[in-house]
Amino acid sequence: MSEVSRRKLFGMAGAGAALVGTGAAVGFGIDRLNGGNPAQAAVTTVPFHGEHQAGIVTPAQPNLHFAALDVKTKDREKLVKLLRTWTEAAKRMTAGAEVVPGGAYGGAKEAPPGDTGEALDLPASSLTLTIGFGPSLFDDRFGLAAKRPAGLIDLPLFPKDKLDPARGGGDLCIQACADDPQVAVHAIRNLVRLGFGVTEVRWSQLGFGRSSSTSVTQTTPRNLFGFKDGTRNIKAEDTDALRDQVWLTAEDGQPWMAGGSLLVVRRIRMHIETWDREPLAGQEAIIGRTKGSGAPLGQTNEFDEVDLHVGGKDGEKLVAEDAHVRLASHETLNGAKILRRGYNFVDGSDGVGHLEAGLFFLAFNRDTRKQYVPMQQALSAKDAMMEYVQHTGSAHFAIPPGVREGGFWGEGLF
Amino acid sequence: MSEVSRRKLFGMAGAGAALVGTGAAVGFGIDRLNGGNPAQAAVTTVPFHGEHQAGIVTPAQPNLHFAALDVKTKDREKLVKLLRTWTEAAKRMTAGAEVVPGGAYGGAKEAPPGDTGEALDLPASSLTLTIGFGPSLFDDRFGLAAKRPAGLIDLPLFPKDKLDPARGGGDLCIQACADDPQVAVHAIRNLVRLGFGVTEVRWSQLGFGRSSSTSVTQTTPRNLFGFKDGTRNIKAEDTDALRDQVWLTAEDGQPWMAGGSLLVVRRIRMHIETWDREPLAGQEAIIGRTKGSGAPLGQTNEFDEVDLHVGGKDGEKLVAEDAHVRLASHETLNGAKILRRGYNFVDGSDGVGHLEAGLFFLAFNRDTRKQYVPMQQALSAKDAMMEYVQHTGSAHFAIPPGVREGGFWGEGLF
Repeated sequence: MSEVSRRKLFGMAGAGAALVGTGAAVGFGIDRLNGGNPAQAAVTTVPFHGEHQAGIVTPAQPNLHFAALDVKTKDREKLVKLLRTWTEAAKRMTAGAEVVPGGAYGGAKEAPPGDTGEALDLPASSLTLTIGFGPSLFDDRFGLAAKRPAGLIDLPLFPKDKLDPARGGGDLCIQACADDPQVAVHAIRNLVRLGFGVTEVRWSQLGFGRSSSTSVTQTTPRNLFGFKDGTRNIKAEDTDALRDQVWLTAEDGQPWMAGGSLLVVRRIRMHIETWDREPLAGQEAIIGRTKGSGAPLGQTNEFDEVDLHVGGKDGEKLVAEDAHVRLASHETLNGAKILRRGYNFVDGSDGVGHLEAGLFFLAFNRDTRKQYVPMQQALSAKDAMMEYVQHTGSAHFAIPPGVREGGFWGEGLF
Repeated sequence: MSEVSRRKLFGMAGAGAALVGTGAAVGFGIDRLNGGNPAQAAVTTVPFHGEHQAGIVTPAQPNLHFAALDVKTKDREKLVKLLRTWTEAAKRMTAGAEVVPGGAYGGAKEAPPGDTGEALDLPASSLTLTIGFGPSLFDDRFGLAAKRPAGLIDLPLFPKDKLDPARGGGDLCIQACADDPQVAVHAIRNLVRLGFGVTEVRWSQLGFGRSSSTSVTQTTPRNLFGFKDGTRNIKAEDTDALRDQVWLTAEDGQPWMAGGSLLVVRRIRMHIETWDREPLAGQEAIIGRTKGSGAPLGQTNEFDEVDLHVGGKDGEKLVAEDAHVRLASHETLNGAKILRRGYNFVDGSDGVGHLEAGLFFLAFNRDTRKQYVPMQQALSAKDAMMEYVQHTGSAHFAIPPGVREGGFWGEGLF
């Protein structure tokens, strides 16, 4: 009774592209009418085209599937062709359609279906797809060395890092965010499938519960330490901060990256069982905020300005020298901010009685050397929170600018 | 601005228990008003008390966190005390409240907070918590051997099983289902925390996209093979089938299990990359249904009766001898059915370029010896689908009946 929603959508729109970029809410409402999955009731379509890629300042959707891939060919033309193919596929899927035309099983029975099918009855679900290029893509395979952004460094090993090579690096990345995890998983799977013979999955990560809001229209979510996270995050509405701290321009040295950004990825295991044994006062001192309202210590409400100097009755500063908010604040980092867009995760258990839980940290900045790196150096060296976290995965990607009509992901690079 | 929703809810209800069991929709609507996470807009509370535990015939929620635990004490009283504590906690959390009173950070700063906090701003989200007792709980530690249900067998090793001991077994299980994954994760985490010193996590699994509907009010979801899954599932509305095939009675030999059920858990890895290379005709022959509508082969619509005898033009049966629907059908299994309530999963990638994806199979039946076991023996021996799947985890639990007001989980067992 509902298997044709993705097919019909495209049929109604004539060519599908008519829907792309409009941002209009399209009424599917299948499961909503039937009292089914509320997560599937979301009817929003996020425009694919634009000056910047979607999935950066787009209000953070609640579900993530992130994949890092390696390129298995040295043939530059094959890579370019795949990027063109992926762009068309992403335009379709973010509009709520199948990955390729005719994938809805009306076609030849003798061939594998064009679309794998698990999102066939589901709406667009605010799906965004964001692509990135890792440092290793700029080696000698494709002649891209001269086009590597200066800020796309090989990330240093920070104090206390315990990185798993199976959870780091990658020539390419695709970030899929959506209101429904099945829509995000479907998108990654079908892009990976289109890449057979050219790319293969290096590692992948699911996440939920967006650990930061990216718009003033969203309430601040809580991470798995139970604290509101990202209160001071750069928001979509703060155009000055985006201009200064997120988007690259030609002056950053690589004109093809103008309108793009740099993405730092860190898989941060949280030792939640240990954290949960810490008294409330201790938790709040480590963070530098109250757990209930999220107000900075010494203040009343979540969005009150952080005052790093306010003293308590004993003369000690209320926000401790090793508090997370102090060390991560732009006041102590020469004004540096980042745009965080991470997710919580639970990857089963660790085999010794604990949940394998944490924060999959995703942060966009303009120059990682001047923003993320000094921030993380301060945190990994001094943050009281380091007793409860461990960085187990790390990657870095150049996020090219958005795609114009008729263009393709990373066109300016090739 | 919104950190008090769980606190306020309980405050408004006086003692919390007033809300439990009403099933009334409670209007939190925090994020909904703010245009935030649509998954958080769900405002449904599922009653905790009843003849049967919630989370079996409850219309399947879209997110799962399942945990298997081992008991680390031999002290029966400690176990009983924990079950009482867990029951109170489950009543509170399924009503949208914190795990214990005063957990919302209004209490002592010198003690660890009672509630871990990450669900503080989120509504009940249709949370259900369902407990089960594994075969190993009936060993000599607690004097329960004589109370082991006859149907709660040690599951046999089926042909082609490739079981990982780190993903199987368990003295206890807790199934958390919710509209929001963060609410399910919060519930498991806080129950695990209450169990420190008595239980510890043996393994755990997240899932999404409910792979079977459990009510005629729901559309049939798709699994990661892209097919509608569970069209012929036992539904909440089919009271005859529930009576005959799901709920145990005193006549099954253990009066304490009357109103309970048996839960079979199988983690089924799907080789989706191989599946995706199979032509459409082949996929449909393996399943025995069309991929688009889900109609049985030879029929027109999803809910048309399966005809195992209808022949095609070449005289061959349209539903092949090794088709999944034939082998799993009650017609070929002496009328045996099961109530499936599984979830899709993607646990990252497998290290050799593929997604670690599959189906976390959860099925409730009255006598596993007569229902699941013969079904799986037929499937594992003959099902054409076995080329594409591998059972990597296995567990079996006795699901005690529902809790009466003032009672506790598994009260009849102790």
